[in-house]
Amino acid sequence: MPARKLWSFFHPSSVAVIGASESPDKLGHEILKNLVQGGFPGALYPINPKSERILGLTCFKNVKEIPDNVEMAVIIIPARFVPGAIRDCGEKGVKGVVIVTGGFSEAGPEGEALQKEAAAVAAEYGVRIIGPNCQGINNPYHPLCASWPLLTRKGRVAIISQSGTVGAAMMDWFSEEQLGVSSFVSLGNRADVDEIDLIEYFEEDPNTRVIAVYLEGVKDPVRFQNVLKTLTKPLVVLKSGRTPGGRVAAESHTKSLAGADAIYSSLFRRHGVYRADTIEEFYDLAKGLAYLKPPAGNRILFITTSGGSAILATDAAEQEGLNVSPLPPELAEQLKGVIPAHAIHANPLDLTGDANAKMFHEVIQRAHPHYDTLGIIFGDPIVDASQVVTANANELIIYLGGADVERAEKLKMHQMDIPVFPTPERAVRTLAQLIPPEMKAERAKHTFPVAKGRSQMGLYDSFKFLESRGFDCIFSRSADSPGKAVHLAHQLGFPVCLKIDSPDILHKSDCGGVRLNLQSARDVRSAYSEMTAQAHACYPDAKINGVIVSAMASPGLELILGMNRDPQFGPVVIFGLGGITVELFRDISMRLLPLDRKEALAMIGEIKAAPLLKGYRGRQKVDEEAIVDGLLKLAQIAEEHEDIVEIDLNPIFAYAEGIVVVDARILKA
Amino acid sequence: MPARKLWSFFHPSSVAVIGASESPDKLGHEILKNLVQGGFPGALYPINPKSERILGLTCFKNVKEIPDNVEMAVIIIPARFVPGAIRDCGEKGVKGVVIVTGGFSEAGPEGEALQKEAAAVAAEYGVRIIGPNCQGINNPYHPLCASWPLLTRKGRVAIISQSGTVGAAMMDWFSEEQLGVSSFVSLGNRADVDEIDLIEYFEEDPNTRVIAVYLEGVKDPVRFQNVLKTLTKPLVVLKSGRTPGGRVAAESHTKSLAGADAIYSSLFRRHGVYRADTIEEFYDLAKGLAYLKPPAGNRILFITTSGGSAILATDAAEQEGLNVSPLPPELAEQLKGVIPAHAIHANPLDLTGDANAKMFHEVIQRAHPHYDTLGIIFGDPIVDASQVVTANANELIIYLGGADVERAEKLKMHQMDIPVFPTPERAVRTLAQLIPPEMKAERAKHTFPVAKGRSQMGLYDSFKFLESRGFDCIFSRSADSPGKAVHLAHQLGFPVCLKIDSPDILHKSDCGGVRLNLQSARDVRSAYSEMTAQAHACYPDAKINGVIVSAMASPGLELILGMNRDPQFGPVVIFGLGGITVELFRDISMRLLPLDRKEALAMIGEIKAAPLLKGYRGRQKVDEEAIVDGLLKLAQIAEEHEDIVEIDLNPIFAYAEGIVVVDARILKA
Repeated sequence: MPARKLWSFFHPSSVAVIGASESPDKLGHEILKNLVQGGFPGALYPINPKSERILGLTCFKNVKEIPDNVEMAVIIIPARFVPGAIRDCGEKGVKGVVIVTGGFSEAGPEGEALQKEAAAVAAEYGVRIIGPNCQGINNPYHPLCASWPLLTRKGRVAIISQSGTVGAAMMDWFSEEQLGVSSFVSLGNRADVDEIDLIEYFEEDPNTRVIAVYLEGVKDPVRFQNVLKTLTKPLVVLKSGRTPGGRVAAESHTKSLAGADAIYSSLFRRHGVYRADTIEEFYDLAKGLAYLKPPAGNRILFITTSGGSAILATDAAEQEGLNVSPLPPELAEQLKGVIPAHAIHANPLDLTGDANAKMFHEVIQRAHPHYDTLGIIFGDPIVDASQVVTANANELIIYLGGADVERAEKLKMHQMDIPVFPTPERAVRTLAQLIPPEMKAERAKHTFPVAKGRSQMGLYDSFKFLESRGFDCIFSRSADSPGKAVHLAHQLGFPVCLKIDSPDILHKSDCGGVRLNLQSARDVRSAYSEMTAQAHACYPDAKINGVIVSAMASPGLELILGMNRDPQFGPVVIFGLGGITVELFRDISMRLLPLDRKEALAMIGEIKAAPLLKGYRGRQKVDEEAIVDGLLKLAQIAEEHEDIVEIDLNPIFAYAEGIVVVDARILKA
Repeated sequence: MPARKLWSFFHPSSVAVIGASESPDKLGHEILKNLVQGGFPGALYPINPKSERILGLTCFKNVKEIPDNVEMAVIIIPARFVPGAIRDCGEKGVKGVVIVTGGFSEAGPEGEALQKEAAAVAAEYGVRIIGPNCQGINNPYHPLCASWPLLTRKGRVAIISQSGTVGAAMMDWFSEEQLGVSSFVSLGNRADVDEIDLIEYFEEDPNTRVIAVYLEGVKDPVRFQNVLKTLTKPLVVLKSGRTPGGRVAAESHTKSLAGADAIYSSLFRRHGVYRADTIEEFYDLAKGLAYLKPPAGNRILFITTSGGSAILATDAAEQEGLNVSPLPPELAEQLKGVIPAHAIHANPLDLTGDANAKMFHEVIQRAHPHYDTLGIIFGDPIVDASQVVTANANELIIYLGGADVERAEKLKMHQMDIPVFPTPERAVRTLAQLIPPEMKAERAKHTFPVAKGRSQMGLYDSFKFLESRGFDCIFSRSADSPGKAVHLAHQLGFPVCLKIDSPDILHKSDCGGVRLNLQSARDVRSAYSEMTAQAHACYPDAKINGVIVSAMASPGLELILGMNRDPQFGPVVIFGLGGITVELFRDISMRLLPLDRKEALAMIGEIKAAPLLKGYRGRQKVDEEAIVDGLLKLAQIAEEHEDIVEIDLNPIFAYAEGIVVVDARILKA
């Protein structure tokens, strides 16, 4: 049983502190004091040749002089004396040493040699090492605080950290929030025990529900992958060295190679490891995984007295793929009489300032069967939050704006093992990580409301109109029969393209309404028949004017230029690259009117794909002036034609000189 | 002077509290108490027909009975009595009323009518209204706390909030961190005074350096844009209602139309408004703008004793476009003797556990001239942080993991007006927002280190090799003269494409080494000459084998399949869509070996552009099985050919049936 190998570190019957000190500003004093004040239940032996007693405990000159067995030792003496101390420990039968002292591999070649020597001596005697250059270990369940600061609260999360400070920050936050930890281990230089040994140990530790690891690089990639394969407890990792600069810094810090960051992401995704992006998310995720019940699905109802906080929560939820689904009629019915008539009967459910604990309680009880999670947001200190919430239920508790009452209520809830989050966004993002991707909704898009009663201009008329406003459109003619289409194709020269012309069909390509690259009269004739038939089949009520026969545009950079009217702000001009950069990556820019040349130019430089306009990777630079002109023309149309509510020029092809409109949609009020 | 219009709200000589109460659990008691305990310097008049004295103050039955002038009134009586109370205030000559009472427009049609009535009465007498349904106002500089909780610390940020709770949370955080605010206003239903009036007011308020507004929607888009045009103080906005669900929630909360969220973003960008994405970022930004000095450029040096925190800071900095530039040799020289030999002499500069306040101080002084910002990260409570930092200098202070010492030192620094951030990421992201985009570096990419001593297989040999491993490659032949190329083109049939074949040229298209769609013998002949000439010009030492003449692949979906070796994890297989989705959006997935069919399929579903594979928007679905096979073949090559260190099949064209390699790069060790 591999985990038992580390048992002596976390449950020693006796501990020697080699380098214990009488002086309160020394770590050798601090650690001994924390062991004593933390309530260590076994024998404690300060070792210091110059002292008789420290903190009331008899001091020994050497670990070998101790009359009884010593199971574990903490070493805080200058680096050069450490190998000797380990030898003494080995001879004494000590099972494990925690070396706090720095000045080893992190400090250059001499330190490196010293560390190798220490490891060799330890191996000789079968002594395990944690560290050197570490911040010690803490197991509040033994209890054993061989670390600093003194933290004694028992919790559910084991923290393993390659950085003392990052681990200490986590411990501090868990302590401040009175949630505690199941253990803390500072890895230091990993001369022997590493993150994999500890993950294996905590996998079997009954007090640990979640393992949280801060990592700069794994020591052994193969063992690491193997442990991930068999791990059953949730593992949260904060892995630094994500950027080239961070990676170089990580490699100098750990003096070891770090794999490419993207590989870690892929590995974590494959094995269900929760990857935190920031230290704050690291904390939130560990807390959420330890104390939240994973929801059965993505439906969430927000219940609150704070309208503002609930809107922020709704935004975060939709961005994370949760479903802020409307109140089911059945629930709405059940809530009548329970909540005030002037409350907002929707999701979020705003109970207003008239809310009290009883009302919250009744709403929560009725709502639970209808949702996977209830997001309960407290604000004003008007209700006793801790009286309202239900332990062990699917409730996500958020409390903000409540000042002292908030802090007191939060601690009460934490004592009930109910986690409280300080902002809607942090709460929702944490919850969202607990839901498998396949249960999530597609991330909500920014949409413009589509006004009712709009009518679409026919495609041929649209081209005519655009040409009258100075746009160059692909050479096109209208055909209302297959024969006419063929005739036009001959006039234009093959290949040609056919587009269905109907004011009632908004998305032509969704019903086979665009046929490109037709090479012959026969192709055109059959395309005409197929397209009109398919259009009639898809939209039985649509009026079909026929088709537009166009020349094939020579290949250019596909753009989208558009105009839309916002109900509050008025006309908006929109720019993006065509195709997937708009649809899948939502890479667009927009401007309100009035639009001038400078702002139009700024717009086209704002999209992420902007380098393509400048002639990316050997492509030709496109005519930015012509694009600017196009945007300004759209702005002018918006001003002069109040009846036109939407223009969608998609695609426009851009060339080194000029732009050509290839397809267009114009909607009128 | 428009701002003077609101002067009476923030600097009244006398305040009446209409609805003051003797009962400590009523808001009418709380607000009067906060006015008293907050040290309001003028006359206070509780109004309550049933009381004689409240909190030791003489109570009046009606505001009109007060013998002296009353400048401002706070109203906390049931909604139906509010219009009458305003009339009394009007007759008394009160300049402004803050209506805390709810039950107006937010509570349905009756409340709406009542609000209109109240506004009409106020307009009749020229009385201005803040609210109704609000959490009051607070000006610690008068002082005047007509709000709750009682907060009295003076600061630099004015908070305007459409949500009481969100505003209170901000106030609470500024108070808890002992930074204070310059004012707080809860907007409520905006029956009269709105966010624009208040932005104009605080623009002229000498105590306000930064204006922070929580907004669900602006009341008047035209006035809003006008105020943005002339504003000189930094404005931070948290605008909720970003998603469709959030927008609906915002509209029910405010009972008013909200413009499309993307328009707000565009407007804010245009006018230099700082947009926060979360309430926490809202706080950080307001704090940073109020207390940090905007840096002159993007160069930052991290100085720390915590290696881990500094790596996290470096990651965040590079992601945000800051330049974590190496130590200049001159500075490295100046630091010798100041910092320990075993410290990490780099950026981040890790002073190790031997650091003390003097060392920090000397390093900081020497480093300032070389960097735009010093990011100073404190961890262990080993140095008195507040002794080290310099007020009014470009220092970004981060403190984490220091427990009680951290909290005490933070407050000391805040009293010196030096902001302290709780995590590296929050600090760096805040600073980054203060730097104009044009000063920032391009966001660092994930890169694989390029091993030295690699050699490239010729393109023709690469195709041969790939075919031997079961890949279909575009039909190609090798030509070492223009004549041979023409001859091959005739064999293949026009159009053809020519690619330069040289083991020494890694990026063919960067030096004109790819010519597509050549239609005639003459085109091929001149392309051959031009390409080889250009290649020789670009890479004088390159060995040129000639060109590869290929058929033009019929258009398909462009993919990238690749293999690479990570120094720590070994072989990695990579998948992405070709062209810009990989290069500009970095939309790739990867897997370590061993790779099985299931994982390969998961890989291709993982990219954002995955919908394109499934036949997005009328395109044809591509052959996913063939892609999976391709990835598995690459994995097998990686296992069997240790000498092959990198394969880049870019592009591969995918069709409804099968995939075809169009270009390839294979590197050997």
